[in-house]
Amino acid sequence: MSAIKQVIAVRTDIKMGRGKTAAQVGHACVLAAEAARVSHPDWWNEWWDTQEKVVVRVPGYGDLEEIRREAARAGLPYHMVRDAGHTQLTPGTATCVSVGPAPEHLIDRITGGLSLL
Amino acid sequence: MSAIKQVIAVRTDIKMGRGKTAAQVGHACVLAAEAARVSHPDWWNEWWDTQEKVVVRVPGYGDLEEIRREAARAGLPYHMVRDAGHTQLTPGTATCVSVGPAPEHLIDRITGGLSLL
Repeated sequence: MSAIKQVIAVRTDIKMGRGKTAAQVGHACVLAAEAARVSHPDWWNEWWDTQEKVVVRVPGYGDLEEIRREAARAGLPYHMVRDAGHTQLTPGTATCVSVGPAPEHLIDRITGGLSLL
Repeated sequence: MSAIKQVIAVRTDIKMGRGKTAAQVGHACVLAAEAARVSHPDWWNEWWDTQEKVVVRVPGYGDLEEIRREAARAGLPYHMVRDAGHTQLTPGTATCVSVGPAPEHLIDRITGGLSLL
């Protein structure tokens, strides 16, 4: 089996500061990891020691939605983050989506072509 | 009881890109959240729906270590992240520390004076 990783795709077409971006990615990591802990405990356990996370960039909302759809279709754990809108963004703005923890080769089919943030 | 939140303090004296910072904060969020799920399931449950995360800045390693020590002394869940050093940083470099999920008034005694990243 390939290594287990988590990939978080972040929109670059909305203006978020460094701390805001980090908090959004934190939401995505926590929520998708918990989804995996429940649905795929074997993946979660194997991933736990490495905690491998890769943060990549996408140009807009459509890309997040496409990643989310493909992750769902492939049966991978995922979480799309929508901002509460207390600061910086309009309430409900989708900011990032996390796929995995899941086997690398399954995630790479979806996000393999994306560049690091 | 006050609201439950998680605070992540990030060093500003080491050079990390936006994606790198976000991944480090992701590590901190996941690992401290899991510590809380096990040690303080009541806090974890109450926090789950809000997922409140606040990312703040500290000038250097000494500040991370002081936050870690105070969180441990107060019996709060925490996690100090050390980078594996595959990219950008020297292996073992401490990058950030997460405190909570825990009640706001307990965390604020430790991190209340810090500015947002």
